[in-house]
Formats: sequence, C-alpha cells, structure tokens
Amino acid sequence: MTADSKAYDPPESANSVGYTVAENLRIATAEDPLVLDSGGKLGPVDVEYETYGKLSPNKDNAVLICHALSGDAHVAGWEKDPETTGRLWRKRKPGWWDPVIGPGKAIDTDKYFVICANNLGSCYGTTSPSSLNPATGKEYGLAFPAVTIHDWVVMQSRLLRHLGIDCLHAVIGGSLGGQQALEWALCCPQCVRKSIVLAASSRLSAQGLAFNAVGRTAIMNDPNFNNGDYYHTTPPRDGLAAARMLAHITYLSDEAMHEKFGRRLRNKVKPDFGFDIEFEVESYLDYQGRSFVERFDANSYLYITRAMDYYDAAEKWGGGDLVAACSRIQSEVMVVSFSSDWLYPPQECMELALAISRNSKPVNYINVPSHYGHDAFLVETEAVGRLMQSFLKST
Amino acid sequence: MTADSKAYDPPESANSVGYTVAENLRIATAEDPLVLDSGGKLGPVDVEYETYGKLSPNKDNAVLICHALSGDAHVAGWEKDPETTGRLWRKRKPGWWDPVIGPGKAIDTDKYFVICANNLGSCYGTTSPSSLNPATGKEYGLAFPAVTIHDWVVMQSRLLRHLGIDCLHAVIGGSLGGQQALEWALCCPQCVRKSIVLAASSRLSAQGLAFNAVGRTAIMNDPNFNNGDYYHTTPPRDGLAAARMLAHITYLSDEAMHEKFGRRLRNKVKPDFGFDIEFEVESYLDYQGRSFVERFDANSYLYITRAMDYYDAAEKWGGGDLVAACSRIQSEVMVVSFSSDWLYPPQECMELALAISRNSKPVNYINVPSHYGHDAFLVETEAVGRLMQSFLKST
Repeated sequence: MTADSKAYDPPESANSVGYTVAENLRIATAEDPLVLDSGGKLGPVDVEYETYGKLSPNKDNAVLICHALSGDAHVAGWEKDPETTGRLWRKRKPGWWDPVIGPGKAIDTDKYFVICANNLGSCYGTTSPSSLNPATGKEYGLAFPAVTIHDWVVMQSRLLRHLGIDCLHAVIGGSLGGQQALEWALCCPQCVRKSIVLAASSRLSAQGLAFNAVGRTAIMNDPNFNNGDYYHTTPPRDGLAAARMLAHITYLSDEAMHEKFGRRLRNKVKPDFGFDIEFEVESYLDYQGRSFVERFDANSYLYITRAMDYYDAAEKWGGGDLVAACSRIQSEVMVVSFSSDWLYPPQECMELALAISRNSKPVNYINVPSHYGHDAFLVETEAVGRLMQSFLKST
Repeated sequence: MTADSKAYDPPESANSVGYTVAENLRIATAEDPLVLDSGGKLGPVDVEYETYGKLSPNKDNAVLICHALSGDAHVAGWEKDPETTGRLWRKRKPGWWDPVIGPGKAIDTDKYFVICANNLGSCYGTTSPSSLNPATGKEYGLAFPAVTIHDWVVMQSRLLRHLGIDCLHAVIGGSLGGQQALEWALCCPQCVRKSIVLAASSRLSAQGLAFNAVGRTAIMNDPNFNNGDYYHTTPPRDGLAAARMLAHITYLSDEAMHEKFGRRLRNKVKPDFGFDIEFEVESYLDYQGRSFVERFDANSYLYITRAMDYYDAAEKWGGGDLVAACSRIQSEVMVVSFSSDWLYPPQECMELALAISRNSKPVNYINVPSHYGHDAFLVETEAVGRLMQSFLKST
C-alpha cells in the first residue's frame, strides 16, 4: 500500500452494502513495472479499487466486477463526500451497479467478496494520462502508453495477488467490462470459475470503430486539446462533449429515442428556425455532453476508446479463429445480449457463445428483450440480476 | 434570365444525354421575393439548374429530379471543364445519377424533359449563405434565412413556371430528394402525375435528429467557424470534415462496412498503438471528410441538415396525422425503401405507403434487398432504374 492510499470508513446509514472500502494500491513500480500489450512498460502504477463483503477464509468467494468506458471502482453502496475523501471527481452517489450488488442482492455481498478496480488509463484514481510522469515531473498526457483490455486484466490480476486471491469465483462485466470478463476467461483460464459477459462480443464492428474515430476526431480537433497537454489550461471541453453526444446515440436504441423524445420540440410549440436547441433530443444530448466534461478526462477518453478498438479475442488467442481462441476457456460462461443493442448486437454476442459451445464447453446464451439498446445492461437490472444470481449459484 | 447566366454547349463526345444545359435563372427578386416557411422573405433568388431532353409541344413530359443533402443540379451527362464554365465547385465528371438518366435509360431523355435544380441554401450555384446579401454587400453567412423542404418545392415550382411548365409528369428523388418528391405530391397535388420517393419517409427519426445535431456541433465548435463568417478567412474545415465522417456512417450499413473494411489495419500488420489512422475504416472516413471540405460549404451543411430535421409531412399537412395528410395526394406514388437503410428504415417508408393506401389512393411500395444502406438509392441503379422505368410508363 502506498503512502497516498486513502481508506475511509463506510457511511453509517446510507451504505446498503454494509461494507465499502476505497483503496489506492501500488501494484507496479519502476523496478517491477507492468509490461503492456504494446511492448511498453509502466511503473509506478497505482490502482483505485473498492471491495464489498468479506473474503472467505479459503479465499474462494471473490467476484471481480469490470467497469465499462466511463465507469469507476465505485460499483455499489454510497460514497462519502468528496471533501472528506479528497476524490474530487466524485459526488455523493450510489455505485453505478448498486441495484444488483449488496446484501441479499443478485451479487450477494453476504456471500461474495466483491472487488471493482478502476482501469489503467481511466481518470478515477488509477494511474492515467493525468497522473504525473516520474520521468518529467509533468502529467503524462499523450506520453502515456497505449493500454488494452488485456493490460487491464493483467493489472487486475496483480491487484488480486496483492489481496491474496488466486482464483475468482466469477468475473463479470458489461460492454467493455464484458470484454474484460471474456479476456480473463481466455488469458487466465485456470483462475476463473465463472465468467459473465454482458452486452459484449469478441470484438467491435467496423461501424463501432468508425464511431470511435469520429469521437476522437472531435476531441483532437478542439483547439484546447493542445496535443493532450491541457492539464494547466482549459481542457478540450467542446470536443469531449461532442464525442460523448455521439457515443450516447450508440448507447440508446432508435426505438428508445423515439419513445423518450420523438420529434418533440424543446419548450416551444413552433421551431425558432435557428441553430440553437430546437428538439428535446438535442437538449438531452447537449446535457449529456456538458455533464460528461465535468467528470471525465479527454485523454482518458482517447485511450479507452482505443482499447475498445483494439480488442479482438479471435486475433489475440486464435490467430483470427474465434473457435480456436475459445478452446482455452475453462470457466463456465454466460453471454447475455440485449435485443435492441446495436453497438454489440445480439448476433455478434451469439457468435461468441457459439464459438465456446463448438468446443463442447459449458455456455449459456440469453438474449434479453429490451428497448434500452446497449445501455440495457445497466438499466435492465431486474432481468440481468435474476440471470446473474442463478448463474452464480449453479454448480 | 439574369446577366450572370452561363449557358454552355454540351461536350461533343462525352455527353451520353445528348443535351445538357446549365443555367442560372433569377426566380425571385426583392420586389417579388420567395416567402419562406419560417415567415421570412428572400429575394433575389437565383437558381442553378440543368435540363436534359426536349420539352414536348404540349409540355406534358417534364420530370423533375430532386437532389439530396450534398447533391447539385448536375444529375446526368458530363460537364465541361470548370475553367470554361466558371463553376469552380465542379470537376469534370458525370452527373450524380447518370446511370439512370439519358437516352434509352430508365429515365429516358428521348421521351422526357428532365430538370434538376440546385436547392436554396446549397452551395452549387443557387442562392445560399455564401451569396452576397444585397442589404450588406457581404456574404449572408448565418443571416441567411432558414430554408425547408417546402421552400425548395416553392422554389422549384417558380422555376417550372419560368420554363412554362404547369404540370409534371413525375417528380423523383432519394433521401432528402425523396421528401421533396413527397412534398410536391402534398402541396401541389394537381401539378404532379407521378411521385417516386426513394429511401425517404415522412420525417426523420429522433436518432436521425441526434446525428444531425452532433454534426452541426462539430462545425460550430470549430474555431474557424466564427459564427458563420469565414468567407474571407480559413473555413471550418475540421468541423465540416468531422460532420461528414459521422454522416457517412449513417449512409452505409453495418454489414457493408463489415464487408468493405472489417477490422483490417491500414497498411500495417500490427497496430502502432497511437491515435493516427490504424484501421482501414478510419482511413476511409478521413478521406471522405477531407474531400468533402473541398467541395462543400459548412454553412450550407448547417442549413440543409436543419431542413432535413424540420420536415414532417404529417405535422405540416395533417395536424400530426399522416393518413389525413396523405388524403391530399392526387398523383400515383411509388415508395422504395432499401433493406439495410437505417437512416430512413424500411418500416418508416412502409408507414408512408400505408398512409397513402388508407386513403384508397394508388401507391406502390417496394423494399429492395440491399447491403448498401441508405446509399443504396444511388448505388443500386439497376434495381432502382427498372422500378422507375416501369412506374413511369404505367398508366
């Protein structure tokens, strides 16, 4: 544990989990760096993580939750005020997956020891482009090395080693988190008993690559971007907001947008015939963009979308053949897609499940009917909770 | 005809149409302005248009082609060099729908007198934000009034009046052009015998509004945008390129992108792990964006996407009820959708056809199987040509 670790007590009343710790742990140093997929080395690396519940004496009840693009380690329960913790990115709020994690909930913290760590390159406490580069004494910016989903799994496995955990009862995630759950099953097959992959396939589509490219272009076009060196000037807020607006469209389904906004005008009965906000959907996107820049770092956005681009399980583990890649898997796998998800569409999720089953390995595939698009993995907590609960229990 | 009209002879050999004229005609003046949907008035208005074939003595063989977002009046045949015509936006190239328009082609210029006019607000010769505002002697920029699809139909009908044409044998268009064909059938029901609506529905979806909003944000975020006043400085190239990149994703289908690019890297076997172009699809979008800024005006892009946003046939003509709106139609209508079009999806095109048929009016609806997404109306020229040819002939 490093000197800057800031453990704190859980709030008295609000904490439905009963036990939450946010820690910051040094898992790599300059002498013992992380060796990255890109060939680069990185150290020191500090990891911000939270845990819930208690590790059993024989350490066989650990469940790792992997977060998606803009997530963080705070997956359940309530945080203290940022003023008392020094974590300025955060607001007092429940964890991002609080409905399914806690005592008696789908991922039952009376049974399981739940861990969630902020990923390398993200801006919520783990080492990232906004961290100080010991070589220069300045923030890394674009000198930060590229990170991949595999690197995140390596980082997480180092964290687990520090916690004394050799084997996970389960690894669970949605979207980019689902790809981490898959990568765990592929790269550390003997360390995982169960893997739950939600709203994720073995790789992003060409269309998905294209959306990410446009988002990054918006950021890098922003005159305040300054080649990633903006930590002491105005950050590229407009560019990051535009990138987030675009990404949000891909998280919602066409039908959900139709139901939620349709073509309704915003606070008017006739259009103003101008370029300010006219439609409700424009107002929604504008809000999403502007609120995102208050809580996210543009450089982190660049690095994490690149990690999303690069991931290709078939390429990494099967020479391009997904069935061959999946022959490595030893855990039971559950793949869950959502009918209106068009970022990681059901068909592609099913292809992953099929590739596993072609190896005569145990796999459950469920397509959940939902209007919520890609966001469904966060929104359809009842259906997802039920599926996870029974899968975690099964023997 | 105004003094600046520049008619020219057709090229000797290259012109498959046999007869092409590009003209620039003043259809509105300060004393006799166009009255716009927004309530504004605009004059003078000069319209750039081309014609193909010959108007019959009783003037009953006119076919109006309406162009889409980035189209122009040059719909068929070959142009002369821009040096000789003074039209600098253009390159020597065949018209954008040349495969279906010409002697013996689907829209047979031996039979029909074909007209295509550049729309108000576009940057290919018709009055637009880059035109001089007579009130100031400077380019309009954002002082240009909002334009709508209905305004374009009004502009086209003035042009036809100048050409001595009272009634169209047919009006035809795809995408935004298809909505103009629909608007003709609704607002001038007695002046149209046949309407062909390709890849267009009665209104853009919430998702479509959202994509347009992000594209405009990219343009208006560009520091060179300067509130639309950039005609004597560097234009907002980066913003316009980003908007075009995004729009291009919506023109192609997921499956077409998968087939065309997949996840192939661009000129390399391993990624560079950086933020330059890594994937083929990034290179393609980058090219599309950069070439677009050579030929399009950012302000025109803003105005035309707003016209796309505003159009809602049910609102305008039926108090929100599309069936009631379609009761006005007197022309035969053919609606053609494309199976992989997700900007104007088949379901929404079919709803338009159903609304017409609920009025016991003649309507053909065809869904063309195609991988090309929204672009299919331009690409599937054989299928589209066949459908149009037989529909134009039918009595």
